[in-house]
Amino acid sequence: MINLGVIGFGYWGPNIVRNFNSIEGVKVSLICDKNQPSINRAKKAYPHIEITTDCSDILESPNIDAIAVITPVSTHFELAKKALQNGKHVFVEKPFTATVSEAEALIELAEKKNLTIMVDHTFIFTGAVKKIKHLIHAQELGDLYYYDSIRVNLGLFQSDINVIWDLAPHDFAIMDFLISEKPVAITANAKAHVNGFEDTAYITAHFNNNMIAHFNVNWLSPVKVRTTLIGGEKKMLVWNDTEPDEKIKIYDRGVEVKSKEGVYNLLVSYRSGDMWVPKVEQTEALKIEAEYFIRCISNNERPINDGYAGLRVVNMLEACDKSLKNNGQMINICDTYQFQTMSN
Amino acid sequence: MINLGVIGFGYWGPNIVRNFNSIEGVKVSLICDKNQPSINRAKKAYPHIEITTDCSDILESPNIDAIAVITPVSTHFELAKKALQNGKHVFVEKPFTATVSEAEALIELAEKKNLTIMVDHTFIFTGAVKKIKHLIHAQELGDLYYYDSIRVNLGLFQSDINVIWDLAPHDFAIMDFLISEKPVAITANAKAHVNGFEDTAYITAHFNNNMIAHFNVNWLSPVKVRTTLIGGEKKMLVWNDTEPDEKIKIYDRGVEVKSKEGVYNLLVSYRSGDMWVPKVEQTEALKIEAEYFIRCISNNERPINDGYAGLRVVNMLEACDKSLKNNGQMINICDTYQFQTMSN
Amino acid sequence: MINLGVIGFGYWGPNIVRNFNSIEGVKVSLICDKNQPSINRAKKAYPHIEITTDCSDILESPNIDAIAVITPVSTHFELAKKALQNGKHVFVEKPFTATVSEAEALIELAEKKNLTIMVDHTFIFTGAVKKIKHLIHAQELGDLYYYDSIRVNLGLFQSDINVIWDLAPHDFAIMDFLISEKPVAITANAKAHVNGFEDTAYITAHFNNNMIAHFNVNWLSPVKVRTTLIGGEKKMLVWNDTEPDEKIKIYDRGVEVKSKEGVYNLLVSYRSGDMWVPKVEQTEALKIEAEYFIRCISNNERPINDGYAGLRVVNMLEACDKSLKNNGQMINICDTYQFQTMSN
Amino acid sequence: MINLGVIGFGYWGPNIVRNFNSIEGVKVSLICDKNQPSINRAKKAYPHIEITTDCSDILESPNIDAIAVITPVSTHFELAKKALQNGKHVFVEKPFTATVSEAEALIELAEKKNLTIMVDHTFIFTGAVKKIKHLIHAQELGDLYYYDSIRVNLGLFQSDINVIWDLAPHDFAIMDFLISEKPVAITANAKAHVNGFEDTAYITAHFNNNMIAHFNVNWLSPVKVRTTLIGGEKKMLVWNDTEPDEKIKIYDRGVEVKSKEGVYNLLVSYRSGDMWVPKVEQTEALKIEAEYFIRCISNNERPINDGYAGLRVVNMLEACDKSLKNNGQMINICDTYQFQTMSN
Repeated sequence: MINLGVIGFGYWGPNIVRNFNSIEGVKVSLICDKNQPSINRAKKAYPHIEITTDCSDILESPNIDAIAVITPVSTHFELAKKALQNGKHVFVEKPFTATVSEAEALIELAEKKNLTIMVDHTFIFTGAVKKIKHLIHAQELGDLYYYDSIRVNLGLFQSDINVIWDLAPHDFAIMDFLISEKPVAITANAKAHVNGFEDTAYITAHFNNNMIAHFNVNWLSPVKVRTTLIGGEKKMLVWNDTEPDEKIKIYDRGVEVKSKEGVYNLLVSYRSGDMWVPKVEQTEALKIEAEYFIRCISNNERPINDGYAGLRVVNMLEACDKSLKNNGQMINICDTYQFQTMSN
Repeated sequence: MINLGVIGFGYWGPNIVRNFNSIEGVKVSLICDKNQPSINRAKKAYPHIEITTDCSDILESPNIDAIAVITPVSTHFELAKKALQNGKHVFVEKPFTATVSEAEALIELAEKKNLTIMVDHTFIFTGAVKKIKHLIHAQELGDLYYYDSIRVNLGLFQSDINVIWDLAPHDFAIMDFLISEKPVAITANAKAHVNGFEDTAYITAHFNNNMIAHFNVNWLSPVKVRTTLIGGEKKMLVWNDTEPDEKIKIYDRGVEVKSKEGVYNLLVSYRSGDMWVPKVEQTEALKIEAEYFIRCISNNERPINDGYAGLRVVNMLEACDKSLKNNGQMINICDTYQFQTMSN
Repeated sequence: MINLGVIGFGYWGPNIVRNFNSIEGVKVSLICDKNQPSINRAKKAYPHIEITTDCSDILESPNIDAIAVITPVSTHFELAKKALQNGKHVFVEKPFTATVSEAEALIELAEKKNLTIMVDHTFIFTGAVKKIKHLIHAQELGDLYYYDSIRVNLGLFQSDINVIWDLAPHDFAIMDFLISEKPVAITANAKAHVNGFEDTAYITAHFNNNMIAHFNVNWLSPVKVRTTLIGGEKKMLVWNDTEPDEKIKIYDRGVEVKSKEGVYNLLVSYRSGDMWVPKVEQTEALKIEAEYFIRCISNNERPINDGYAGLRVVNMLEACDKSLKNNGQMINICDTYQFQTMSN
Repeated sequence: MINLGVIGFGYWGPNIVRNFNSIEGVKVSLICDKNQPSINRAKKAYPHIEITTDCSDILESPNIDAIAVITPVSTHFELAKKALQNGKHVFVEKPFTATVSEAEALIELAEKKNLTIMVDHTFIFTGAVKKIKHLIHAQELGDLYYYDSIRVNLGLFQSDINVIWDLAPHDFAIMDFLISEKPVAITANAKAHVNGFEDTAYITAHFNNNMIAHFNVNWLSPVKVRTTLIGGEKKMLVWNDTEPDEKIKIYDRGVEVKSKEGVYNLLVSYRSGDMWVPKVEQTEALKIEAEYFIRCISNNERPINDGYAGLRVVNMLEACDKSLKNNGQMINICDTYQFQTMSN
């Protein structure tokens, strides 16, 4: 039996508790929140779970094996550090940390203590993303040309982070999971309209190979869009996550290049064929992720969404910040991968 | 009766001929094309119109009052210059010219000769764009936050220009028409995958006020997308040009800001209301534009899509080129507006 | 405090318990089900609620004020009768009963005992249906021309009823709520393909006025469709219940009739104007209905979805059965309304 | 060279002329219309084609080989009869004739004179319908369960026929082409709201096998719907003709039946798999049909859309009329097939 403490019962915390609570072999033994309405909701929904307003009760409890940190990003480092120092595994809400150096410090600490870090990159456990991963790795799309994502809606304004830190971690984590090649540079342009935090942002990720990636995130869109286009040499794919049924469409479409005399005389023509919508697994992603966390702890297995995955996302976020401060200048992001290589 | 010569009967030329041919008071008297299949198509469709393979026949004809230049952009300057020198009004396919200095030279020449330049920015004559213009100018949307356009499809690869020069002129011309404030800087990022010309590009336009604009153009998309989001302080708008009927949706949605104590404690909340789809005029835009060209010539009236409008679009395109060559660096584009101010 | 017993914890029962359980002033004190997996689910979700396998425990309990009957329709009459005989209010899953005479008997019994019957016509408590009701009654659509509903999907085959008894009660109840005028005759055509029960059915309801109604219900559709068109003299409406946001679209479209010389020389032309999507209340309909049931009991108020509403739906269902048995012959359904008039 | 005369240059006539005019080996030599605006349009578009207001000029011309009858249905019989009597092949707008006996008389006359009748069932020459035909005949869908068609829009009110005679011929002809088994009975229900002709109609076609078909036609719909669902034992298909690209969707979905003990204890469960959108030929159907007419004449080949196909559609239309006059009573339509069998 693994005993789990959950810090934070705000927007996402209830989903964390609901899912871990439904797993055999796990006991959610303690929830911490300081907000009275959140405490009331927790009490009503889980009369059998103890609640505290002091997170030390969780961080220092001898009975707790693992801690889920579901709080604002600025607090992740301190909470996760104390948890690891006290010998507890940690499940940390995305984005992993507020800086790259915080992420590196937590990874080092966890490795020293032989503890598990899992960063809550929920989307990589959805049926859609797993299906896309399978298609890409089976070379169904061929070599990749671009990854183009739009994640916009009329969004909850955060009071401590901008729209990039709020929405882009999803897309950065998904792309990191799907594509082996990693971006080497970032350019970001954005605008703050309302409260001083950027609410409309456009990010380009550059690669050493043929790929380019782009991310459009916006808290001021009247419509909710969750669409990613992935273009490959052989086939192309549209993932529309707002579709209930037909989430992934694979198009047997592309261009055909016939060399004539030298590269500037290429003959480029269309190719248009059938379209295919594969059936996609429907199980709630967070349930699968929660079970995976418990399995990783039990088997001392390193999760795919470990500290390094979290670090790579934070690394891109930090590069966005730097690019924004420099009028969209291209920012190199290759450095940290040395760290990763060292540790691996 | 105005006599019109048309140079170029390739992809777009037949639409030009069909529309001018249907206007009272215009005679399409001569078509020039060197491509035999194009010549055959012209002969079959318009047995009564004379055809030549030598454009001097049109440029130097004493009977021709106006010339439509519907050829690749690299040829626009020479053809339009000769036409103007010979005292003919010109209707030039978009983009106006291959460089800003070419555009400036043509404008100067036309002003000296008191001749009309119209650049074929067809979209500004659509019912949808005219309706949006009306809404913006009636302050229905309030102050504008962003202009976010996507124009992607499996595109015909051009052998002389990249996707920005092919597709973005539409969006630059539309935004130029809709929004009085002009962009002051451009950042562009792109990738060439197939034949050395960029086929996937992301452009940000920066303004001195609260606005930001973004353009996503791509020849390698499996699906055709023609969507523009325009976000304003009061309302927001989605223009989906692939919709047959419901092209414009106006959302009574946005954010409400309540100042608490200083800007960093703002209380930002949603506002969600009805949505409204206005009826939009259905007349073919090119027909309206063709009639407008004839009217401008007849009345010696300066068109809204004159040489300056063409120049402003070319100015943005040139800035894209510079930004691409400098890793997405922000490129100032305010210079030419001095020229415009001078001339106005 | 009202004590509620719930009989049936299969597909719909858990939603009933969840909603009544969340209302102030109600206590779900006893659940009855004989199916072991259902019992297990009830225990896990509601450890504090007692469970029985003998429905007499609920029907005869002196502590229970009201009973929700959430069982197959064939059992409704016996269970509801005993509940009423024992002085309990009843909330009955749709369709109310298996026959018109059963419905009449229950109404009579409830009136004699001054007890409340509510039939679970959930849809009439949705934001969409309430908005449509408002529009119709404000004469926004003008006099109604037709009501055309499609409710198809790959459906769970019932082992005791056909697709009409499974799906059409929703639409019959919605139309009954929306439109004051009642149908006077029914024609139904259908086919059974799989297990002897009709899975594909087409029903027409005839009215004494200008209206016609049609219902397309099907368990063998590859796609889920939940669309109702309501055409009126002034405006027309499309309700698409599978849309998350834009459920109701109101079209300012129709025909304009100009009399020339006699009815056979009418000049009929289109009228096409704007479209409008009103914001619709999002609260869960069953929650509103559950609170309404408790309020009706407490205030001795007669619900809009009372036994008569249930009876009118069963009356249409019975007419469908008769029409099916007679090759789609038109079946008169006006009789029972005499009963209703008597009682009212 | 085949000389064609066209009677009727109203709504559909111009499409007929445009397509026959573009075929090698055909000369549209004479157009007849009495309406002055139609005459003007014909003159402008085809200055080289002669125009008459007297249809005898066409019917009796010794130079004309074939006649296209593109006039209101009430005139089809007389015009086609004279054409056949004068030894001319006929291409007749749908529906073929106003009555079954008229259709039979024309077929008999054409057979006696060895002339070709083609009824303009344009849709069977579309890429979509041809693809569906291929799928059905390759047993991709398995045995068919139902054919369910919706063809509604804000329609042009006809002054001489109701919505069934206007819209349903399309669907009757398509189904006749797709499905070998023929309907044996019809039930129809409808309502006239505006000018005395039914504008809203629901038709069921009954078969001797497992099939049922339904047709929803309506001139008073605010939205244009062109959707046909075809359900089979193995797969199901949705044809949405208003989609520009994804017209046909094939669902690997259905029900699985496991016999337990006798038919009333069948275990029926879902089966849900991938979806597939085949590429569909884009050539204009009328162009293909026009070429086919010329080929049939030249080769003395009997067209698939011959007089019998036209007769089968008229037979269903006549049955609709009878059913409407008898309160939706089921009307037998098998008789004429004896005639067809005789002649074949």
